[in-house]
Amino acid sequence: MDGEPPFVEDPDDTREAIMAATYVALCTHGYADLTIAKIGDAFEKSKSLLYHHYDSKDELLLEFLEFVVERFEETIPFEKEGAADDHLNAVLDHVLSVPEADVGFHRAVIELRAQAAHDPAYRDHFTRSDRFFRDRLADLLRAGIEEGTFRDVDPEATATFLHTMLVGALLQHATTDEVVTKALREEVDAYVRDRLLADPDVA
Amino acid sequence: MDGEPPFVEDPDDTREAIMAATYVALCTHGYADLTIAKIGDAFEKSKSLLYHHYDSKDELLLEFLEFVVERFEETIPFEKEGAADDHLNAVLDHVLSVPEADVGFHRAVIELRAQAAHDPAYRDHFTRSDRFFRDRLADLLRAGIEEGTFRDVDPEATATFLHTMLVGALLQHATTDEVVTKALREEVDAYVRDRLLADPDVA
Repeated sequence: MDGEPPFVEDPDDTREAIMAATYVALCTHGYADLTIAKIGDAFEKSKSLLYHHYDSKDELLLEFLEFVVERFEETIPFEKEGAADDHLNAVLDHVLSVPEADVGFHRAVIELRAQAAHDPAYRDHFTRSDRFFRDRLADLLRAGIEEGTFRDVDPEATATFLHTMLVGALLQHATTDEVVTKALREEVDAYVRDRLLADPDVA
Repeated sequence: MDGEPPFVEDPDDTREAIMAATYVALCTHGYADLTIAKIGDAFEKSKSLLYHHYDSKDELLLEFLEFVVERFEETIPFEKEGAADDHLNAVLDHVLSVPEADVGFHRAVIELRAQAAHDPAYRDHFTRSDRFFRDRLADLLRAGIEEGTFRDVDPEATATFLHTMLVGALLQHATTDEVVTKALREEVDAYVRDRLLADPDVA
C-alpha cells in the first residue's frame, strides 16, 4: 500500500486489463454506485467482453479482491532479505503509510469488506485473506525467533495482534478524518521493542 | 458490547422507542436493505411520527449512531472503581467479548461505518466517536500512570494503539468467519504486562 496501484501499469492480458479498469472505476465511484457499465467505461477493450466474463458486479469485484491479494503477495516485502526486525519494520511501513492518493482505493476496499456483513461470498474472501496475512506475519515472527532477533513469543498470537492492529488502522484511515498514524506508529515501535525484541538495546 | 442491547428494554420516550425500533430493524435487514418503512414495522407507535421526525433513513441512522455512543458511554465501565489495570481489563473484556447474539448488530455497525467512505456526515460521526473512545482510554491510562499502576507511557499514543486494535477486532469479527479473540486477548494481556504495568510480577 505504498502508492503503487495493486495491478501493473501496462496490463499484460485481458484479465489484468479488466482488473485495472475495475480499480479505476471503484476508486472513482465507490461500491454502492458501481455498475459493470461504469467499469466498462474505464476498459479499453470491448464492454461485451466484461458481460461475457461476469454475471454480476459482485462476481467481478470478488475476482478483483483475489487479484489484489495476489498483487499484495508480490509487493508486500514478506520475503525481504535481512534481520527479522528490519523485515517487520518494512511490512509495518508498507501497510501504515497509506499515501493520500490511495485513500479512494482504501475507502472502496472498506465498502467491499462491509459487504461481508450480509454476503457469505465476501465473508469467505476476507476470512481467507485475513488468514493469509496473519500466516505471513507468523512466518516472519517465527523466522525472527529462530534467528534470535525476537523473544520466544507465540507467533500465532503475536501475528493475530499485529494483524488486528493493521486492519484497524486501515479502517480508521478510510472512515475518519483524523490521521492517527504517527501516534500509532510510535506505540507500535514501543511494542516491538518492549515485547518482541530479544535485545532491545541493540535495536 | 456485553450482550446488553445499546438502548433500554423499556423505552422511556418517543426517541428511545424510535432508537429501539431502529436497532431491531438494522439487525434484521442490515443497512443496504433498510428503509424507514421497515423501521416503522418495528415501531409500536404511529409510522407517520417517523416520517415527521426524519427526512431520510441516513438522518435517522446518524441519530441512532449518536444514541449508541451515548449508551456505550453509560455501559462501558470507564468509571469503574479500583486499580487502573483492573479497570483496563474490564474495558477490554467489554469490547472483545462480543456474544454471538450481537453479531447482527456489529455487522450492521460496520455497514454504517463503510458509509463514511463516501458520506461526509458518517465520516464526521466516526471521527468524533473514535476520538471519544480514544480520549476515555487516554484518561484511564493517565489515571493509572498517576496512581503508579502503569509505567510512564504516552497516554495518547497508547490509547491510539489500543483503540486501533479494538476497532480492528470488531471489524474482523463482523466480516470474517474466523474467531481470533482468544489468540488476540492472549497477546493483548502480554502487551499490558510487558509494556504498561509498572510492576508486572504483582499482576
